[in-house]
Amino acid sequence: MYPKPLKKLIDHFSSLPSVGPKMAERLVIYLFKQNPEKINDFAKSLAELKTSLRYCEKCFNLSEQNICSICSDPKRDQTTICVVEEPLDIFAIEKTKQFSGLYHVLGGVLENLAPGNTLKIPELENRLKNEKISEVIIAMNPTTEGDATGLYIARMLKDYPVKITRLARGLSTGGDIEYADEITLGSAIINRR
Amino acid sequence: MYPKPLKKLIDHFSSLPSVGPKMAERLVIYLFKQNPEKINDFAKSLAELKTSLRYCEKCFNLSEQNICSICSDPKRDQTTICVVEEPLDIFAIEKTKQFSGLYHVLGGVLENLAPGNTLKIPELENRLKNEKISEVIIAMNPTTEGDATGLYIARMLKDYPVKITRLARGLSTGGDIEYADEITLGSAIINRR
Repeated sequence: MYPKPLKKLIDHFSSLPSVGPKMAERLVIYLFKQNPEKINDFAKSLAELKTSLRYCEKCFNLSEQNICSICSDPKRDQTTICVVEEPLDIFAIEKTKQFSGLYHVLGGVLENLAPGNTLKIPELENRLKNEKISEVIIAMNPTTEGDATGLYIARMLKDYPVKITRLARGLSTGGDIEYADEITLGSAIINRR
Repeated sequence: MYPKPLKKLIDHFSSLPSVGPKMAERLVIYLFKQNPEKINDFAKSLAELKTSLRYCEKCFNLSEQNICSICSDPKRDQTTICVVEEPLDIFAIEKTKQFSGLYHVLGGVLENLAPGNTLKIPELENRLKNEKISEVIIAMNPTTEGDATGLYIARMLKDYPVKITRLARGLSTGGDIEYADEITLGSAIINRR
């Protein structure tokens, strides 16, 4: 019923997470009303995504070079690795300006309590063998899967001479005690300082 | 902080309606994990959007040809025009299979009760002068702006020998009287049949 080129683009947008078919229709109609330069620039950025970006060979962050700007920055603390699930977590932590060490992107979490063969866990072990790391910060998402993955990594690392730490759990700044969920509030009480 | 190509694509996605910066980040990371063929096909569809589609010269529906498949279909009722706000409304009405006439896309609604110069109202008048139209169905969205626009068009058309009708207001099929808003329920009572 739709003209074919429209249908195809709607299908592409619908295939994205949290974009339903109705939203995809609206996005495509919105785009059609934009000027051609903007759309072409969008298409160009998209086409170049895979060629202009790769995973850092050391930490698996997204990077324009083989080694990312964080791994190749000599001013950063080379003895601390913060283990995260996804590259976006790095960007979030960097925004806080509270961490100046290195990162390691796992690429996800355990599935059915097994690491599968996509998680970059062997690569993390290699780094502990080859680099002079004294602390590993486990910065998984505060979810059941994130917790399980964090525990798995902590156990795996227990034979290495490194301090293992986790991000603190507690109240969100600007939040309201009355509305905090009980597990978070409980953590905030236990970890009071 | 993001690699530049990533930042640029995130900005493009963020510029879309109902896509915030966080969602744009997630979409781009998701895309980065897809295979290159899929991304290239997406980029190609996007780049071709403006060249492969245009507005139908007669009804302003989206079309691959100068005249859309509806306007050029001799089997459709050439005496009835259904006036809609946007091309997506046509696709929604076509899905019902309850209408076999022609359409006219206004391209929006009145702003500050004035038609501005982007709405295709003069073009609608020309069609009434040049085609043998006996009924105009006003199918604006059931909003304040849609109603105002519908009234404006109805007044404009009163000197033409056409029947002017509007879409019925009433209960949604599968809905619940208890939860219907009072204006809708009121319309359903008044228009009972």
